[in-house]
This record gives sequence, structure tokens and C-alpha cells, in this order.
Amino acid sequence: MIEKYINAASGKTQADVVLKNASYADVFCGVIRKGDIAVAGDKIVGIGNYSGREEIDCSGLTVLPGYIDGHVHIESSQLSPEEFASLIVPRGTTAIIADPHEITNVCGTAGCDYILKASANIPLDVKLQLPSCVPATPFETSGAVLGGKDVEENIVKDEFFGLGEFMNYPGVINADPDVLKKLEAAHAAGKIIDGHAPAVGGNALNAYLCGGIVTDHECNSEDEIAEKISKGMYVHIRHGSSTHNLSNAKYITPSNMRRFLVCTDDRHAADLKDKGHIDDALRKLVEGGLDPVVAVTCATLNAAECYGLKFRGAIAPFYLADLTVVDNLKNFNAKYVFKDGKLVAKDGKPLFDTSSRYLPKDVLNTVHIKNLVPDDFILKINGNKAKAMTIEAGGVVTGCEIVEVKNVGGDVAVKGTDILKLAVVERHKMTGNIGRGLFKGYGFKGGAMGITIAHDSHNIILLGDDNAAMAKAGNVLKEIGGGMVIVESSGKVHSLTLDIGGLMSSRDAESLQRDSKAIIERAYAMGVDRRLEAFMSLAFLSLAVIPKLKLVDKGLFDVEKFAFTNIEA
Amino acid sequence: MIEKYINAASGKTQADVVLKNASYADVFCGVIRKGDIAVAGDKIVGIGNYSGREEIDCSGLTVLPGYIDGHVHIESSQLSPEEFASLIVPRGTTAIIADPHEITNVCGTAGCDYILKASANIPLDVKLQLPSCVPATPFETSGAVLGGKDVEENIVKDEFFGLGEFMNYPGVINADPDVLKKLEAAHAAGKIIDGHAPAVGGNALNAYLCGGIVTDHECNSEDEIAEKISKGMYVHIRHGSSTHNLSNAKYITPSNMRRFLVCTDDRHAADLKDKGHIDDALRKLVEGGLDPVVAVTCATLNAAECYGLKFRGAIAPFYLADLTVVDNLKNFNAKYVFKDGKLVAKDGKPLFDTSSRYLPKDVLNTVHIKNLVPDDFILKINGNKAKAMTIEAGGVVTGCEIVEVKNVGGDVAVKGTDILKLAVVERHKMTGNIGRGLFKGYGFKGGAMGITIAHDSHNIILLGDDNAAMAKAGNVLKEIGGGMVIVESSGKVHSLTLDIGGLMSSRDAESLQRDSKAIIERAYAMGVDRRLEAFMSLAFLSLAVIPKLKLVDKGLFDVEKFAFTNIEA
Repeated sequence: MIEKYINAASGKTQADVVLKNASYADVFCGVIRKGDIAVAGDKIVGIGNYSGREEIDCSGLTVLPGYIDGHVHIESSQLSPEEFASLIVPRGTTAIIADPHEITNVCGTAGCDYILKASANIPLDVKLQLPSCVPATPFETSGAVLGGKDVEENIVKDEFFGLGEFMNYPGVINADPDVLKKLEAAHAAGKIIDGHAPAVGGNALNAYLCGGIVTDHECNSEDEIAEKISKGMYVHIRHGSSTHNLSNAKYITPSNMRRFLVCTDDRHAADLKDKGHIDDALRKLVEGGLDPVVAVTCATLNAAECYGLKFRGAIAPFYLADLTVVDNLKNFNAKYVFKDGKLVAKDGKPLFDTSSRYLPKDVLNTVHIKNLVPDDFILKINGNKAKAMTIEAGGVVTGCEIVEVKNVGGDVAVKGTDILKLAVVERHKMTGNIGRGLFKGYGFKGGAMGITIAHDSHNIILLGDDNAAMAKAGNVLKEIGGGMVIVESSGKVHSLTLDIGGLMSSRDAESLQRDSKAIIERAYAMGVDRRLEAFMSLAFLSLAVIPKLKLVDKGLFDVEKFAFTNIEA
Repeated sequence: MIEKYINAASGKTQADVVLKNASYADVFCGVIRKGDIAVAGDKIVGIGNYSGREEIDCSGLTVLPGYIDGHVHIESSQLSPEEFASLIVPRGTTAIIADPHEITNVCGTAGCDYILKASANIPLDVKLQLPSCVPATPFETSGAVLGGKDVEENIVKDEFFGLGEFMNYPGVINADPDVLKKLEAAHAAGKIIDGHAPAVGGNALNAYLCGGIVTDHECNSEDEIAEKISKGMYVHIRHGSSTHNLSNAKYITPSNMRRFLVCTDDRHAADLKDKGHIDDALRKLVEGGLDPVVAVTCATLNAAECYGLKFRGAIAPFYLADLTVVDNLKNFNAKYVFKDGKLVAKDGKPLFDTSSRYLPKDVLNTVHIKNLVPDDFILKINGNKAKAMTIEAGGVVTGCEIVEVKNVGGDVAVKGTDILKLAVVERHKMTGNIGRGLFKGYGFKGGAMGITIAHDSHNIILLGDDNAAMAKAGNVLKEIGGGMVIVESSGKVHSLTLDIGGLMSSRDAESLQRDSKAIIERAYAMGVDRRLEAFMSLAFLSLAVIPKLKLVDKGLFDVEKFAFTNIEA
């Protein structure tokens, strides 16, 4: 192939495609330059003056390297990889570092295998990380467990690009033997290890980094960013649906710029469709005052460097011809998207067909619970003060507030208050485990809502002010094989099926998004605070690696103490 | 090992060594920070507040990552790798990207093997590049030929880090089949390819880069640097003995900084001993106005990134404990040097023993010529105008000047003029080839001088104003097994033996340097222009890949036309 590239570059043969009269981002020098961009086969072969078998006039447009999402869980889109690609590729994203942590928590490595095979024929590079923390903590019941030995066996395989975000930071810092086994195996295989260490600093951060972990997407302050970058980490600026820290971009300086990446982590279909993907992050970053070429560099070259993606992430000879042609560096509307030198999207529409989607039995029918009854949701509390979880808009950090509770007939009465009952029902192994707690400030009233997406073990999260509605909501989720549900106190049911692991839908993005919007709107109509993501915010209430107070199937969990806690205050 | 690092980082166990009260360069953020640096085993494990089994007070000192020389031919030091290390490690260099191009041109892959084995037990990481262009051009006779097939066979071996500087840029641009074979083989093996493309630009540069070549150390202008960096190259700032382009540092901007590296390429022992190695480059860069942390970043992190040296080139947890502790960021005097966590040099002196040096027979006795006689140096020229080579101080580019010549008895008479005779005598295969030419402006008078270092085929270069002295000089080089020689017209001989391939000495650095200085001084005393390097400048007169006019064993060569040329003007 090198011969073809050289000859097209030298002009001995004609290029396959030439983007004529292009302005383009030179991410090596941080400037916009001009020149024809010549492509032969899958690579850019030259910038200068070229003619090609096919020529596209790019006058007035700007050519950028295809965007790289540095860290994403496809599952959070609730879409199959094929349909996920149909939304993000037309937005200009051509590669993702995908951590199939969610589906693996439900289905084990069969979940990884599903993502891999479903991604095989789409024009998007899906670099698959082997999830490192399945389950994320030993305090909850997941559908699968990947121990040190499992990681050893799998990480050597070519299909795994690296080891996914190491959320069990206490396990690393304490040198837990099974954790060490995972880290050693990844290093022996020469694979990168992603990190996740919110608010970890000082000697604890040093210890965490001695696991050979190189990225973090959980930074929340200037000091945290400065410390993490100075200690060798790459820091992802995150533009998820529930979690976003794009404002961290204000800490980018010319000197530390190369250590910033852009990721979406968790972003659902509606946002991908309506707002966008990395393109939306770029838009907002530039709107926030970041130099557009710097923003693009973070989303392209920096990610390529961090993840060792050679000859990618820039517009230069011998670089992969993953290109996004945008209207301008303010709106970032993608006019054309090229993957491996081929035009794969135009005017925001995919030019590839995703109507035939891979769907193995392994990932279907994953909700295993006994029939729930109203009494399952009785909450007994001694005394009249209890810990209630709270949540802030735009983050996944929860708080703990001491609230007054009223006991009525051996159950906490929440109706008419700003407190809801919360329950996490184990749904993988039919253990019958139900974790129970209180949740303040969500706003929902008049029934129950529930979801089978509950980071990271993906049990059923239910909330409500009505025990019968809560029981019914759980039972509906079992019936539909997973998804989202609202049960009004009147008995009226609204549901959305997510048949793939209870996390994603095998349907097309458009119809799913329509139905998804409807149920989300229903939740807001029933009082959910519009500053929150109606369902996706719920999905993080059980994520026992993020402070402060969380609820898992085995009970209420104090993340800062990394131990279970009583609900009584 | 990860367990040891983590436990030392967390404070569960004591660090092996702690650099207390250190100021250190944070090359990720471009600033100087403060903190104890804790080392366990071969790695840095933490920065903060630490105590160790051994503690070194670094108050008033500054800790830097060990320097990485991004491109060097050890052979140019005329020292064995062991003695080379004894000079550069105490200066703060802990890793080099070494291209054993010279010894390989003389001895074939046995030369690579020699460098590798001689480097095995020294505290210096020698990343060995497989020379790509042996010989550099098909126009000269070398001791060995490494064709495409040889590269295919060798590049897959673990001992080769990458493919050495691809000097045959016309071969790449023209997609020469044997060249393609080499490039494809390196890519298939996942190895980096170094470049060498002086003044190559435009579509020709695009074609060259389509060989997958990533570095260049031959830039001479702002435009050349801008084009090469914008097209994806890393640019080495070079601080050699004959060739230096440190002034290119003025083109470093905050945006393109990460693409600059520092190298020495060719630097001889006297400069290493008297002036220094990368430390001297840093001194001069800072003197020239470059921010010291930027200079250090180019010589450390940037090189590590370019060459894919993971967890190296910075001071951070899990990074290799290659550290240079300097007095300040102006003088860069190395007080302590650590390699893999061990103190290996102090106050400029090595703490390792290099008295036992590896010396295989393969690299000895490499001067094979028949006895030379005065008539071998008769130069017949038709007419009275001829092309003479000229040379500029500080570079390896030669010029071509048309000079008046006087024919006396069928030979050009040069005595008493500013023109010298120049000859390149083939010394590998006893072909009897002698290339003959004229050389203006060197200044030497009253005899002959010669050297068996003659880039890149390392035949014998002789110059003089006396045919008999030239013959005798060649014969002395044969007798001593290679090296440098001066023969005065009186018959008096001064010589320095370089027994390893006629390029390097098996002696200790100190005594070699003393004798080397003496013969160099003798050359200056006999008139050599002091702005030039008395012997090393000669060594580039046959380098037929650098413009403009060169002399090889097969005749006078016009590099711009890439063809032989007549001496007659």
C-alpha cells in the first residue's frame, strides 16, 4: 500500500479523492492553513496542489481531523452500536474509546463480544476496553464478575485495546491482590489503562498512578486538574448527558494543553440526536472562549497521542483519512464526514445502512426477579431523622441530607413531602435483594418510576411515593425485558423497552428517540426537576464509586467511608 | 513489581530513595514545582512528602527527567559505547536513540550487534535503530549492503527499536521497490522510522512522508520547520560537533512546541568531554532565550512521546526513575544522575566502571587497500577551470566553486594555492577505486592528512598539497587499522588509531581525547581554518546525500542532480 500512497503524493498517479480549496486545522501548529487535501485509499497522502479522480470543492468550509471520543459507554445512548454510529458519525466522530462496562456487568464478556461484533461493519473505529471493575464494588450484585484471572485471560486478546476505567481506586491504592493481577496483566500485554479517580489526590493519587493508570475524566477543580496533569495523567473534558465538566477547559494553558482530551462518557440518544456528540462539545467549548483549534486538538491529536493511535488525529500525509468537513469553527456543522478515505456522511445524514443489526441471544432477557408486591417497599426507620440522598444538576455526585421522617403504620410516609422512596431491586440472580432508601429534591409525585439502567451493576432502580406503583413498576420492567417505566397511582403505565441487557434498544434510533422523549416528558410532567435528566440521573444513584451517599441492592452505601451505612441519622 | 510501587507511593512501605526538598521540572505543565521525589526500585513512585531508606537533600537544586538524545551516531564520538556512556551519563543523558549507521556501513549487522552488546551493561538506554541506508547511495562502495530483504529479516527482531534515518529520500519519493520493501517491513513490525530530508518540501515531502517517516533533523529555515511540523514530523534541534541548528529553537511556539526534540547526531569525544552533550544544548538554548522548562521538555517528554517510550521523560508516579539533578536551569551542571532509580553519576563523574569493554574481532582490522603510491594522486584536468568543493563552518553542506587550475606535467599543481587535492580511497573490498577532486578554503598546507571516517561508506578521505604525503597517509591508515593521520612533507607522521571499524577507539575516553586533541591541534597548526572541525569536517565531504558537491570512491558527485559529474567546469 505504501507505493500507492507515495505515488499519489508525488503526483505520479492521481489521488482518489481531493478536497479542493480547503481550509484545514493544522493541529500540530495550532493554526488554520489552506491547501488541497489529497486522499488515496484509506490515507491522506498530501496537502498542496492536487487533482483527483473525485474532487469536492471545500471553498468556505473547514476540514478537521475526525473526532475521537476519548471515553464512552455506548450503552448510555440506549442504542445498539450500529444506531449509535448512525448518530455520531454524521456529527464528525470517527473513533471512540469504548468501555462496554455496562453490558459486561449484565452479560459478562458476552457483552464485550456483542459490542465488538455489532461494531464490525460500521464506519466508526470502536477501540474496545476490557472493563476493569465488574462489578465496580464488591458491595452489590451484578450479572457477571470479572476477576483478576478473567482479566489475565482476556486482556491479551487483540480485540481488547486496553483496560477500562479503573473505578476501584481504593483497591488500587490498597494494593488489593486481585486488582494487582489485573494491572500487571494489562501492563504485560502492553495495553493502556484508563482511570477514574474523583477527588483522589496527594499520596493516594501517587499510589493510584503507580498502577500505571493514565487518564481521568472525573476532575472537578483547578487544583485537581493541575495535580493530575502534573503527575502524568491525561484529563478528559466530559460532555455527557448527566455529567459535564466542559468548564474545566478554562484551565487549559498553552503548556498543559496536550494533556486534555474530550469525551462524552455517558450520553443518551436524545442528546446525540438533538444536540450532538463531540461536535456539540466543541461548539460549547468555543462558545466558552476556547480557541477553536485548541478545542479540535484536544478532540483529535491529543486523544490519538494518549491512546497510541499512530498516524491518526491530524491532517497530514500518511495519516488515516478520517476527516470532518464543517461549515465553520463556531457551529461545527458537519457537511461531509470521511472514514478511511470514504465519504460516510453528508449534511448530517449517514450514508451507511444500519437497518440490519447484530442481535445475539446472549444479551436478551436479562431481567430476573420474583414478582414484587407493595410490601416489598415498606421502609422501617427507627426515630424520626434519616439520611436522604440528594443530587445536583449536571453531576453524578450525590449528597446526604438529614431529613425529618414520619412513620405511619411501620412505614415511612412520603406522600406530600419533597422526599421519595428509593429502592434498588437485584435483577440478575434472583437473590431477592432490595436496597431501600430516601431521595430528596427530585420532584416526582403521584406514582413510581423505574429503570433497569443503574450504574454499575444495573439492577432495577425504583422511586416513588406509592408502594403499589413501585411494585408494579418493577414487575413491568420484568415483563418488557428491561427499560424504563412510569406507573401512575391511577395504575396507568408508560414504558420503554430496552431489550439489550436492559440497557439498550435493538430498535432504530429515530423511533426509540421519539418514544424515549415521550416517557421523559411524562416524568417531567409528573414533577421531576427539569434541571435533572429525568431517567439518566436516576441511573447514577447506585454508583458506589462516586461520592457521597448511594443505594445498592445490598443497602445504603457511604462512598467516603467505602462501607454500608444505616439509614437512621 | 506494581505492588512495590503502590505500597511505597501510599506510604505503606518506605521508598528506596527520596530526593528531599526538591524543585523539579513539571514538563506536563511547563512549570517548576516543589516536593520530595520518592523512588522505589526503578521507578518514581510519588511526589509529595516522603521519607526513604536513603535520602538526598536537593535543597537549592533542580531535578529534571534524564535527557533523551533523539538521534545520535555513537560512532561519531570515536568512542566505544561504554566510554561514550562514561561521558554523557554524568552530563545527565539517560537514553539515546542510536543509529549505528557508520559501523554498519563498515561491518554490516555485526556492527549493530557490537553496539548492542557493548551497551548491555552500561547505565544508559541505547535504543538501537536498524540503519536503513547501507550504503546511503548506490554511488559508493561500502563495507556492507543492507537491502530490502536484509531489513525485512532484521527489523522484526526485538533488538531493533526502529528503522534509522531514511537518507535515501529520492528512493522514497520515487517509490524505489527495494526502498518500499524496507518501509513496509518496518511498518509491519510496528517500528518507528526516522527521517532525513534536507530541504525537501511540497509534494516531494508529502511523498517522502507517505513512507511513514516521522522525524527530521536537517531543517534549516523557518518555512522548512513550519512545513515539516504541519505535515506531522517531529523536528530535532541538533547540537553536533560539525552540524548544529540550535538556532531553530527560535521557531518554537507554545502551539508547536511538542513537536521539537533535541539531538546531537554527530558529536565527538572532545566536545562531549569539554562542552557536554544534551546538557550543553540546553545551556545554549536557554542562553539563546528559550524558556528552560520548554528546552528540557523538548529533550525529555517530547522525545519519549515521539519514540513511544511509555512512562518516561517526565517526573511523575510510575515513570522510570531516570533523573538528572542540576545546580540550576542556566548552567545545567549535573550534580547527581539516576538511571533506573540508581545513582550512576555524581558531580560530573561516572559511578560505573567502563574499564572492561566488549571488543569482538568482527569490528577490528577493517582497512583493506593495496599499497598507495604518489602517482595514485595525480589529477588530470582538461582545460584550466575546474569544480572545487568548498565548505561552510558549522554545517555539512558543501559548495561548488569554479576555480582556475594550473596543469604541471599532467597533474594539477596546488602547492602555494588555497586549493588542496582531495581523494577518497575505497578501503573495504580492495577495489582500487580512488575518487579525486579539489577542495578550496580548508587552509591546510605542507603535506597530507587523512581519516577513515568518511560518511557514510567510510572509505579513506585524504587531502593534501603533496602526492607522496597523501600516499603515505593512506598507507599509515592501513597499518594502524584506521584512524586519523597527518603526514608532513618532511615525512613526519602524526596518527591516532581508531581500531573499531576505523571509526572508534577501544581505548579509554581520557587518553583518546588527549591524543585526539594533539592531532587536531597539529592540523590547525598546519593551517586548517579554525572555524572548521579539523578532521570531522572532512568526514562529511563524501556524504552524497547532503548538497551540493561531494566526492566518493567512484568519483565526483552532484547531489542536487543525484549523479556523477566531471571535475572540468
